[in-house]
Amino acid sequence: MEHNLLDQIQSPDDLRRLTPQQLPQLAAQLRRFIIDVVSVKEGHLGASLGVTELTIALHYVFNTPDDQLVWDVGHQAYGHKILTGRRDAFDTNRQWGGISGFPKRSESVYDTFGTGHSSTSVSAALGMAIASKLQGNTGRSHIAVIGDASIASGMAFEGLNHAGVTDANLLVVLNDNAIGIDPAVGALKDYLTQVKQGRNPRQNNMIKSLNFDYTGPVDGHDLEALIRELTRLKGVKGPKFLHVITTKGKGLKQAEEDQVKYHAPGKFDRLTGEILAKAEDGLPPKYQDVFGLTLVELAQQNDKIIGITPAMPSGSSMKFMMEAFPERALDVGIAEQHAVTLAAGMATQGMVVYCNIYSTFLQRAYDQVIHDVALQNLPVIFCLDRAGLVGEDGATHHGVFDIAYLNCIPNLIVFAPLNEVELRNILYTAQLGLPHPIAIRYPRGRGQNTNWQLPFGRIEMGKAIELKKGSEVAVLSTGTIGNNVAISISESEKLGLFSHWHFGFIKPLDEVALHHIFTTHKKIITVEDGTVTGGFGSAISAFAAKHNYRLEVRILGVPDAFIEHGTVHQLQQYCGIDVKTLTDIFSEY
Amino acid sequence: MEHNLLDQIQSPDDLRRLTPQQLPQLAAQLRRFIIDVVSVKEGHLGASLGVTELTIALHYVFNTPDDQLVWDVGHQAYGHKILTGRRDAFDTNRQWGGISGFPKRSESVYDTFGTGHSSTSVSAALGMAIASKLQGNTGRSHIAVIGDASIASGMAFEGLNHAGVTDANLLVVLNDNAIGIDPAVGALKDYLTQVKQGRNPRQNNMIKSLNFDYTGPVDGHDLEALIRELTRLKGVKGPKFLHVITTKGKGLKQAEEDQVKYHAPGKFDRLTGEILAKAEDGLPPKYQDVFGLTLVELAQQNDKIIGITPAMPSGSSMKFMMEAFPERALDVGIAEQHAVTLAAGMATQGMVVYCNIYSTFLQRAYDQVIHDVALQNLPVIFCLDRAGLVGEDGATHHGVFDIAYLNCIPNLIVFAPLNEVELRNILYTAQLGLPHPIAIRYPRGRGQNTNWQLPFGRIEMGKAIELKKGSEVAVLSTGTIGNNVAISISESEKLGLFSHWHFGFIKPLDEVALHHIFTTHKKIITVEDGTVTGGFGSAISAFAAKHNYRLEVRILGVPDAFIEHGTVHQLQQYCGIDVKTLTDIFSEY
Repeated sequence: MEHNLLDQIQSPDDLRRLTPQQLPQLAAQLRRFIIDVVSVKEGHLGASLGVTELTIALHYVFNTPDDQLVWDVGHQAYGHKILTGRRDAFDTNRQWGGISGFPKRSESVYDTFGTGHSSTSVSAALGMAIASKLQGNTGRSHIAVIGDASIASGMAFEGLNHAGVTDANLLVVLNDNAIGIDPAVGALKDYLTQVKQGRNPRQNNMIKSLNFDYTGPVDGHDLEALIRELTRLKGVKGPKFLHVITTKGKGLKQAEEDQVKYHAPGKFDRLTGEILAKAEDGLPPKYQDVFGLTLVELAQQNDKIIGITPAMPSGSSMKFMMEAFPERALDVGIAEQHAVTLAAGMATQGMVVYCNIYSTFLQRAYDQVIHDVALQNLPVIFCLDRAGLVGEDGATHHGVFDIAYLNCIPNLIVFAPLNEVELRNILYTAQLGLPHPIAIRYPRGRGQNTNWQLPFGRIEMGKAIELKKGSEVAVLSTGTIGNNVAISISESEKLGLFSHWHFGFIKPLDEVALHHIFTTHKKIITVEDGTVTGGFGSAISAFAAKHNYRLEVRILGVPDAFIEHGTVHQLQQYCGIDVKTLTDIFSEY
Repeated sequence: MEHNLLDQIQSPDDLRRLTPQQLPQLAAQLRRFIIDVVSVKEGHLGASLGVTELTIALHYVFNTPDDQLVWDVGHQAYGHKILTGRRDAFDTNRQWGGISGFPKRSESVYDTFGTGHSSTSVSAALGMAIASKLQGNTGRSHIAVIGDASIASGMAFEGLNHAGVTDANLLVVLNDNAIGIDPAVGALKDYLTQVKQGRNPRQNNMIKSLNFDYTGPVDGHDLEALIRELTRLKGVKGPKFLHVITTKGKGLKQAEEDQVKYHAPGKFDRLTGEILAKAEDGLPPKYQDVFGLTLVELAQQNDKIIGITPAMPSGSSMKFMMEAFPERALDVGIAEQHAVTLAAGMATQGMVVYCNIYSTFLQRAYDQVIHDVALQNLPVIFCLDRAGLVGEDGATHHGVFDIAYLNCIPNLIVFAPLNEVELRNILYTAQLGLPHPIAIRYPRGRGQNTNWQLPFGRIEMGKAIELKKGSEVAVLSTGTIGNNVAISISESEKLGLFSHWHFGFIKPLDEVALHHIFTTHKKIITVEDGTVTGGFGSAISAFAAKHNYRLEVRILGVPDAFIEHGTVHQLQQYCGIDVKTLTDIFSEY
């Protein structure tokens, strides 16, 4: 296919040389290019298709990179990347060594602020705008493009609430497509829908009440209207708000019709849009489905059970619970802080709450875990999805800090299952009545066993499990990385040397087992798929120091650095916790 | 003085036996009682005086404790405590072994949810309300009382946004006194002021746009009006919002006039209200003032410097910067998440941002530190006030987790000065241009030296300091607890045995010094005023394990438990890091 106009654009300067009449053609070519590449290379599709015209209009009207453009979350920034010098690199998107799937400062001067987690754009752009003003630069524009799901998060509200009392040169563009990854929820979303439908005063009073100059709603696929409004707003001082209506997945029929599936559809036919079926028969289940399906099973037996997800019903598989028990499963939107304290409030009334949050997003509710749950010792069950290395989403999304940041919280139990069956059983055990809150961390993706729907078994609190006996070196692992360890030991040359212990419970540690291990071995190796700083291995070495055991403790895990994107296998290799590297390490003993 | 009516009230049942005509008299007595006790015992004054009538009205109208009442933050809950069976215990408020200064579930069934940090009440009460509904209890009321400073925090918005699409039996009472600890800020506050002053439609459209049934504003000192409205709202289904106007400090002239000072005034004359002067001459400065005054000095020389505080200009002493450079010092309100990402946005433009947040409140912005600052390696300077044990505010406010939760973040420098001079010099050093963000943790209260305003000196990155040489045991401390260590060593019986090293840099650790220490001593003791789990000592023991040093490492610090309230000295005793206990420990070697 041809991308005549697109091929000429090495930077927004080239874009700005086009006539307004050429832009619709460019939009079509840009959209085609995104579809062509993502259909083969995978990635986030729907969001970028939805903002194709908006992306062109922003770079056309504003003088990027001097004008500062921040893309909230960044799922929608593919068009931006392609127009800002990364067209040829775009087929390396999200791959090891390739460009990031999100805006990233180190990648381009056009990426003014790295994103990945939602709702940061207003604060970041406001900071830039205040800095510009202090530096005497009154002409520079600062633009935050934020979706309707992201703007409902508390952090965005904090940014708007501050911006409204400044005279900062800030433009907030609301990309309102009524959906995040799953459909947006909440009262603000309902209100915005009313505004869109003309069922409220044309002026958006809510935004105006925060002292913003509100314009909209504008059709986000009408380039002429967008350019007209953006050009006008460029000349308006102070905080401004442009409400743009877009269709997620615009230009690909299936993507418009099934916006959840086409958020990140995997490989699909570039012409028909049809998603290419993966051979899934006989594969082990995703941990997400183990969680989601098990929760439904448990909820059938225990009417105290409630599920909460902040905006990830599909990703976490909470959707199964929402379908089976709509009254007892809540999607609260991108509101991790609220999700955790809501769970705490429910727990005071005796409800058994499974609060499912991606490990990386629980960072957003850290204080609530400490202050509202653990301090009050409320037995909330945190299900930390996507713990460990997540793969292609990269540095913003790895769930590698959770062991370190949770382990220091008093009262909290921290557990990482070895496999699907253990995940299932800890979910079962948790609702039998725990004396403490618990955090259960498990990874993204598929497990080990197709035969996982076994009868429930109760897991004994605080017990480590000896998976293999050995004579010299004890390997202590936690979580599913233990499966790598097991294979590596069996493939190492000195199989008999190694014992292997699975510590499902990172906290409390099984001190009885540890005393036994430290008195019956000569060396200790710990393996985890989280940061080595303050993690599981660190806890083991602190145990050793405390009890004056003088054995070498070798800690393997994620090094003290941000880990980029790639396949999980590549990232494990990089961290030295893949099967091959572990086998090599074990073979050296 | 007599408290005839108050003396009869052992529980809200007794209150509800009074006639409406008796309630103003009770309010006067309750207010008098709070003033009498707080004037002698100290504590939070203004907030509780402001809600005296509201407190009485809520317990009079609602059937507490079956109806669930949540006090946001909890500064204002003294009247509630006194009316719910804790009148006689009230003079133990905030003391070791006494009642907490905040609502606390373990203290009373009337304290339905523990608070301390702000903006949690809507989420918690909504959780209770949804649980009640699921349990078939449709008659129970759930009430969140939240101030106008707290409601502007993102978390509260998340709760309101969710509540508005439920049919939960939730009543949000906005206690609007236009002030938190310092005056409230932000666009929402301006809007609420307009509503109060009748400069906007009588109906509060912003709250209505979140789908709440809005009533107000109501005079919060008019018991009759409050009781009438609360009684009416008790019968209204779904999410309701009552806007109540109160005066912080109501009933004590000086407290009404200087609301910031009388938030927690210390001892004062119970009749005149005059604050009793403390003898401050010759005392070392507060660390807060060292920060605040030094920042102004630095800002005079470096025009890139900006200060940010989330709602603590007085407490943090950022007020000095706000007075000296009003354009370059920002109070963003209770919005820690926004504060951190705003700082990150400014740092992208080359500004040198001192973001001052209490250690315990940085838990609210944990993700922003990781995702927006450290991942992008932006050199934001975090000043973590009130790190370590904070004393009378107790379990909700201790800053004891920061070392553990920050140490695992790549790129971040973590520093704890020994004294005022070192705090001053690290503040100076930070603005010379650091390659990384830095977190500087220092405690609440006074330092060690009156002669602290010395010429600035540059601190060498990553260097530990040998404070004392010794032959056998190396004591490694970080932060101001090192002053306890120094005294204890000098008072111990075997002074010559001990060397003492100050690790200002917790991260990066001075590995050169550590290798020297581990090869020249027989035993190691670490001392910190943070949690031992994942803290400084844990990092030292991980170093020892990694390098196969087989010395005993004894870790002293805050145990893995929530620490209650008391004086800092009492809490240090409890944790075993006071001078006496350390001296005893050292003397045993």
